Amino acid sequence: MSARRVPLSEADHIRQIQGVVGLIDRFSPKIRLAIGDDAAAFRPSPGSLILLSMDALVEGSHFDLQYFTPEDLGWKALAVNLSDIAAMGGQPLCFATSISIRKAGSLQFVRKLYRGMMDLADRLGVALVGGDTCVSPHALFLDLTAIGEVKETDLVRRCGAQPGDFLYVSGELGGSAMGLELLRNRRLRTCASHYPDLVRRHLRPVPRCEIGRLLARRHLASSMIDLSDGLSTDLHHLCESSQVGAVIDASMIPVASVPGQRQPLLRKSPLHYAMNGGEDYELLFTVPAGLRRKVPSGVGGIPLHEIGVITRENGKCLLRDQGKLKRFSAGGFDHFAVD
Amino acid sequence: MSARRVPLSEADHIRQIQGVVGLIDRFSPKIRLAIGDDAAAFRPSPGSLILLSMDALVEGSHFDLQYFTPEDLGWKALAVNLSDIAAMGGQPLCFATSISIRKAGSLQFVRKLYRGMMDLADRLGVALVGGDTCVSPHALFLDLTAIGEVKETDLVRRCGAQPGDFLYVSGELGGSAMGLELLRNRRLRTCASHYPDLVRRHLRPVPRCEIGRLLARRHLASSMIDLSDGLSTDLHHLCESSQVGAVIDASMIPVASVPGQRQPLLRKSPLHYAMNGGEDYELLFTVPAGLRRKVPSGVGGIPLHEIGVITRENGKCLLRDQGKLKRFSAGGFDHFAVD
Repeated sequence: MSARRVPLSEADHIRQIQGVVGLIDRFSPKIRLAIGDDAAAFRPSPGSLILLSMDALVEGSHFDLQYFTPEDLGWKALAVNLSDIAAMGGQPLCFATSISIRKAGSLQFVRKLYRGMMDLADRLGVALVGGDTCVSPHALFLDLTAIGEVKETDLVRRCGAQPGDFLYVSGELGGSAMGLELLRNRRLRTCASHYPDLVRRHLRPVPRCEIGRLLARRHLASSMIDLSDGLSTDLHHLCESSQVGAVIDASMIPVASVPGQRQPLLRKSPLHYAMNGGEDYELLFTVPAGLRRKVPSGVGGIPLHEIGVITRENGKCLLRDQGKLKRFSAGGFDHFAVD
Repeated sequence: MSARRVPLSEADHIRQIQGVVGLIDRFSPKIRLAIGDDAAAFRPSPGSLILLSMDALVEGSHFDLQYFTPEDLGWKALAVNLSDIAAMGGQPLCFATSISIRKAGSLQFVRKLYRGMMDLADRLGVALVGGDTCVSPHALFLDLTAIGEVKETDLVRRCGAQPGDFLYVSGELGGSAMGLELLRNRRLRTCASHYPDLVRRHLRPVPRCEIGRLLARRHLASSMIDLSDGLSTDLHHLCESSQVGAVIDASMIPVASVPGQRQPLLRKSPLHYAMNGGEDYELLFTVPAGLRRKVPSGVGGIPLHEIGVITRENGKCLLRDQGKLKRFSAGGFDHFAVD
């Protein structure tokens, strides 16, 4: 019936969002219609493919408001979607939101959510083109759709890795999962403020759009995926899509550093978090041997690290650690030494 | 961490959806990548605008599984989004889903949801290009993004109505709300099977894509909106966007008919449901006086009805009923006779 869209009327919602973001379409002449009509409309660049990513954050499953501020949450919801656009080599263009909030009256909360989103959107020049808020009798649901574009010849898929290609990751791995452990554990939470970098990596990951674009434009990457589930899992995704295997070297994996002598606070080894932690939103990509010398050591201050090679053995992922080769599965080690 | 995407692994989810829909991109050569990579990719038609609609259905707010089958729900979630594309004059192209299901193990439920969606998608030639399923500790959330395209010169907005334009609606109004009342009221629920048309209009609305396209292509509509909130509310949306008013005639409104002598079962008059019921997903549009003769009496078996005219009085919406003019507000009558 008609009272479903409480607590915000459509007009309220539009005013609300516009209040936060100012002139909605100030970013791009490509945005023809943003919030306020039945649908948003934008002009694609001639000859480009449109990329679409849609991902949800659900309270109790993906986040806990005990340690996420609404601004953090807004930032992260956009970041995880833009990370998918980055992994295809795309230029992010715009995004739309669908938010179900828990109770009536939390306009302030919604405003903060949008503020966090727009912090990141401003930084990357991405326009908010549509938004819908409704009330759930249950929990907070945050669903975003991000749109990007890429020249068809620049598109990078998961399935292009070839035996002999070299494997790379951007940035550092494991920081997000270490930050999450500090935030989740009540005993450690008071220590979280000593680790602003780790905590920030969990709450406010920065999608690697510039890196993805550069690799795509220069046709350096034969395949790419973003690290949302963790290196061990996402490497399997990449290998399965490409019907190849991989060997990575533990000593080459850029593990996020824990400052000071506080490492004993964490339950597992830094390598474990780097392999299985997830939510780093770095890029994992492969480069044909002939192009290896063209890979820059970093892009925009974020280093690119070579961590291994692609092999012929379909789906078989191995870790070389202290002279031994161990097979690992998605999400964890098999502890099955093969060498 | 890594175990967030239960109960479906990514690979399971892909297989699952592909099992339902067959070859995902069989519909359109425009779909370059569907499910299985970081983002979907599609080719826009040269010179077209891309339209994006994103709308959620939340258990307890928008539907009740007591009377919605999973197939109905899948159908409706897609229908409400395609209706927004239709209201811009767009050709629907593809859609993506984000589904949070309540408990582990209900793969069968997810499969049925997709089956309902694909029933409608097949009918309209729309491709499923992305899907994400996660588990919520709470309720069922169904979020969809629909993508369409339209030639820039054919785009129909809410804001183009001019004083003197004639107002039209497609189909019949109020049927969805009457169907909902039968379904919601435990006493009446047993009667619901006597009213398959009303119930079907609530559970399985058909978005008016063909009508929207035709009006846009022939440049007949100066403004358009879909009737999701009800005629009284959506007419206000249209008038406020266009900075005009409207007078509609009660005797010209195509009220859904209730077969037999069962009308007394419903609490309110048929006109009330037609004005304020919502969720009919018909199109409300305006036509300049000079083009009035070119409006067909129907499109694809669905009639188009003239119901009133646009006036200069910004935001003022009047209903002529039995010789009197009454002002009405969004969602209900003011019972304020002005004539």
